[in-house]
Amino acid sequence: MEKILEHKRFLEQAYLESIKALKKGEVPVGAVVVKDGKIISKGHNQRISKQNPLYHAEIVAIQEASKKLNSWRLDDCILYTTLEPCAMCAGAVMQARIKKVIFCVTDTKGGAVVSNLNIFDSGLPFRVDYEFIQMDKPKELLQEFFKSLRK
Amino acid sequence: MEKILEHKRFLEQAYLESIKALKKGEVPVGAVVVKDGKIISKGHNQRISKQNPLYHAEIVAIQEASKKLNSWRLDDCILYTTLEPCAMCAGAVMQARIKKVIFCVTDTKGGAVVSNLNIFDSGLPFRVDYEFIQMDKPKELLQEFFKSLRK
Repeated sequence: MEKILEHKRFLEQAYLESIKALKKGEVPVGAVVVKDGKIISKGHNQRISKQNPLYHAEIVAIQEASKKLNSWRLDDCILYTTLEPCAMCAGAVMQARIKKVIFCVTDTKGGAVVSNLNIFDSGLPFRVDYEFIQMDKPKELLQEFFKSLRK
Repeated sequence: MEKILEHKRFLEQAYLESIKALKKGEVPVGAVVVKDGKIISKGHNQRISKQNPLYHAEIVAIQEASKKLNSWRLDDCILYTTLEPCAMCAGAVMQARIKKVIFCVTDTKGGAVVSNLNIFDSGLPFRVDYEFIQMDKPKELLQEFFKSLRK
């Protein structure tokens, strides 16, 4: 139970990151990387504002964590992200040797962890655990964003 | 036939990139992005030398192409890479809206296009064509590299 509260606390931080993305007109997704119970990096989606197809929240956070640790290996790190990772981000998690991913909104369109395919259970080399912990605010933020886009 | 020769010419350029990776002690993989019959960016694997888990050859080339075009969308671009893309790189190709990937060595360990899973045919949103054109030199380079690692 205490563990779930800790996870939700970090997902809340990822959610605050996602608001930064929203303010830039980006799909509101945020992520944080945690090591030894502390946030070592944060990221929000900046794909359009940076005109960089790689700049999903998770990629930004992973890259920042690598810089911080001065290592390509992010062993013993957990990635918290508001949205289920896409194939690129799930693949990046494996490449960085991140041990676990926790997310709070599923992505039926582009999700590659539980929705369309399950990259982490597909027999690829690097074992990654994952957990879905539902939270309402990040989901509502995304729904509102896409609703306003359609208008 | 002429098309195959053109593809091989670009794969040859990707191979030259892979030699740059080898000289840095990296897994020798190289990539180029081509638009309108011209190379607009090149990349080689620099994961260890840059201590960045994202710096596969394909990612470096995609990022560079984006900078060049000042756009996150790489429509009408072809990515040539010496090695079958991993999940991260295949995902990045989709995110960048690259229309086609051509590679010349399959990767039974981490490949995510034809070997372990087929991300491009998995029902994810963005349609990407792919083609495998066998070439000996890039394969031999990779084999020699891994043989020397095992020694």
